[in-house]
Amino acid sequence: MKQQAASVMREMFEAAIASAQPQLCVPPHMPSPGEVKGRLIVIGAGKASAAMARAVEDHWTGPLSGLVVTRYGYKVPCERIEIVEAAHPVPDQAGLDAAQRLLQVVQGLSADDVVLCLISGGGSSLLPLPLPGISLQDKQQVNRALLASGATISEMNTVRRHLSAIKGGRLAAACHPARVINLLLSDVPGDRPLDIASGPTVADPSTCEDALAIVRRYGIELPAHVLQVLSTGSGESVKPSDPRLAGVDTRMVAAPQQALEAAAAVARRHGYTPYILGDAIEGEARDVGKVLGAMALQVAERGEPFARPCALLSGGETTVTLRGQGRGGRNVECLLSLALATQGQPRIHALMGDTDGVDGIEEIAGAVMGPHTLQEAFAKGLSPRASLDANDGHGFFQTLGDSVITGPTLTNVNDFRVILINE
Amino acid sequence: MKQQAASVMREMFEAAIASAQPQLCVPPHMPSPGEVKGRLIVIGAGKASAAMARAVEDHWTGPLSGLVVTRYGYKVPCERIEIVEAAHPVPDQAGLDAAQRLLQVVQGLSADDVVLCLISGGGSSLLPLPLPGISLQDKQQVNRALLASGATISEMNTVRRHLSAIKGGRLAAACHPARVINLLLSDVPGDRPLDIASGPTVADPSTCEDALAIVRRYGIELPAHVLQVLSTGSGESVKPSDPRLAGVDTRMVAAPQQALEAAAAVARRHGYTPYILGDAIEGEARDVGKVLGAMALQVAERGEPFARPCALLSGGETTVTLRGQGRGGRNVECLLSLALATQGQPRIHALMGDTDGVDGIEEIAGAVMGPHTLQEAFAKGLSPRASLDANDGHGFFQTLGDSVITGPTLTNVNDFRVILINE
Repeated sequence: MKQQAASVMREMFEAAIASAQPQLCVPPHMPSPGEVKGRLIVIGAGKASAAMARAVEDHWTGPLSGLVVTRYGYKVPCERIEIVEAAHPVPDQAGLDAAQRLLQVVQGLSADDVVLCLISGGGSSLLPLPLPGISLQDKQQVNRALLASGATISEMNTVRRHLSAIKGGRLAAACHPARVINLLLSDVPGDRPLDIASGPTVADPSTCEDALAIVRRYGIELPAHVLQVLSTGSGESVKPSDPRLAGVDTRMVAAPQQALEAAAAVARRHGYTPYILGDAIEGEARDVGKVLGAMALQVAERGEPFARPCALLSGGETTVTLRGQGRGGRNVECLLSLALATQGQPRIHALMGDTDGVDGIEEIAGAVMGPHTLQEAFAKGLSPRASLDANDGHGFFQTLGDSVITGPTLTNVNDFRVILINE
Repeated sequence: MKQQAASVMREMFEAAIASAQPQLCVPPHMPSPGEVKGRLIVIGAGKASAAMARAVEDHWTGPLSGLVVTRYGYKVPCERIEIVEAAHPVPDQAGLDAAQRLLQVVQGLSADDVVLCLISGGGSSLLPLPLPGISLQDKQQVNRALLASGATISEMNTVRRHLSAIKGGRLAAACHPARVINLLLSDVPGDRPLDIASGPTVADPSTCEDALAIVRRYGIELPAHVLQVLSTGSGESVKPSDPRLAGVDTRMVAAPQQALEAAAAVARRHGYTPYILGDAIEGEARDVGKVLGAMALQVAERGEPFARPCALLSGGETTVTLRGQGRGGRNVECLLSLALATQGQPRIHALMGDTDGVDGIEEIAGAVMGPHTLQEAFAKGLSPRASLDANDGHGFFQTLGDSVITGPTLTNVNDFRVILINE
């Protein structure tokens, strides 16, 4: 039974990752050769964008060229598309140079040409191109002030889009009159195209006035000349009514919810009714584990709010406040906390892992747990609570032989969590 | 619409509290006058037990006498049942004296007599009667070691039941040959009678050996003479096979799950399909708020895993790590975090409160929030995030006029949370 539940969950995790693999999720959304009368130019930015570029190269038989920016260490060898690396999450000069070159690459195109824009998480930091009069240092300072302000991601991006020479639709406007097709791989709550890499190629309905309201609401201190860009309206982004963006075609190739849906289909095939609790569950990992554990107990012991057998799925990105010196990651921390909360309940199994294949800093994606986890740990002289207190999730599950290893997946749709509750 | 949702939630909260009001939930479970041929003796311990005693007095027309222990400040005037107060959560001499007197009160009864035992949360600390050779100081030291060990409530109680002269069924055995009827008001996860006040009047299937295994597993350091009570088996509790406990009749008069079910019935009447996520959801309040918020968004925006309109109910007891100097409580902290997580989503309303009427230290039970909460706060110059960081939930919701005040309810089935999601 342990093996059976574990193998169902493993298959679900793999389906979630496969749904976001650039080699699998990009090709169905590429234009057909007949759609591209002129040239195909590939541009993009983000942690998964080099892998997306490679998928385009592998599946596009006609001529193509282009430039894609990814994070240091995330380069994937391409033959026809140039891949450059830059800093994330704090922007650097390489990112600024790359952003300038991207704007040049799309100059002088014709209406027959197609720009395929590959956007994924992290793209915002990788494309730091401040408006004239704002320096990279200003930009870094603004970023720090935003992060400390308590504003939401969406609010921070609204400010960023009005201080940038490339975001808020400006890159798409630069492509005019070529046709723009955006392929988006989302790792942000809500999957709003505007929020993925701060929307360089999508129209921005928000205004400088909105950005100013956010700055005032959170008491964000900006240098006077930066504030002026907002108050004079000189930072206005490209609006949905702009004719240059009329033909922009935006396609979501992968997102946390889609990954959970792919896993849900696997669960259904194995006789577990799937329920997606949320694709953006955040919070301290051990507390998220407690809440999910209490819900799993309710299902296991009372058959509510879901009938058994079932699979409770969730995504999002938890956080870990470091307390100890162990080897851990947010997914194994959440899983260990769930194991403690469910106390060996015989119906409950779970798998949690990072879809990028790296939970924490080691190349371990996550782990599985089941009714025997605590007993086996005690038998091996492990203290589950001490392991949790030491943030030693990987150490704990590795000792039990319950780690889940996928290798780097070259994509990221955040965390994957499934709790399987047997009949 | 704000008023409508708020009034539905308020009615649900009141139904949850009413389900656990001693005056309402105790009488249906009292013996009928015909069942009591001899005397009716009322005993008990716990935070709600004095209020339970008062309900018995108010509804029992025949003669009765008895002794009930409650926490300092929780006394309710009774005429025929003596109410004494003792310390909680750290036991004191008053509790020890009361425990000894309880054992005397039930001496020399006949088979025609009935002992009505009123047990509620906190009873374990209020009845500290160590076995001979163990002092109150030993007991306090053991308690501290248990609390620091990482053992579960159920495991801690297993140890306690084997070091006590009154717990683990011993009080029920002392009542023999009188008939024992337990009326339990639960505030513990799982509602196991053994875990409510460490089960003074219910049989204990666990053994000294089980207690020793727990002590070893968690490396709990006990004084040598205390350890000896476990290792020699001299602390053995009263087992289910003991004929003295054959007639014990245990009735759950109120519990978190029952309170949530009472609220669920109200929701259904107003057209909201209720779903009870769990009656024992624990964790850091602000993180619980984030998780519930992410789930509420999934329902509000995708209609999964529950169709709208619906009510998501949960109970349990969250915790707050104090960071600021505000006026707060765990329920308003959780609610404010939910408000931030849901960012004014127009379908989402919520109420969270403590069923004892006191969330934190002030006599405010909790608060309500809705789609306009953040906007109204900004308009009044409040920063929701700063309020949360300062643990100022009561200050925040009071400024908005959204506090929920019930007065002390004389009962406790833990936290009550409802999220109403409109169509």
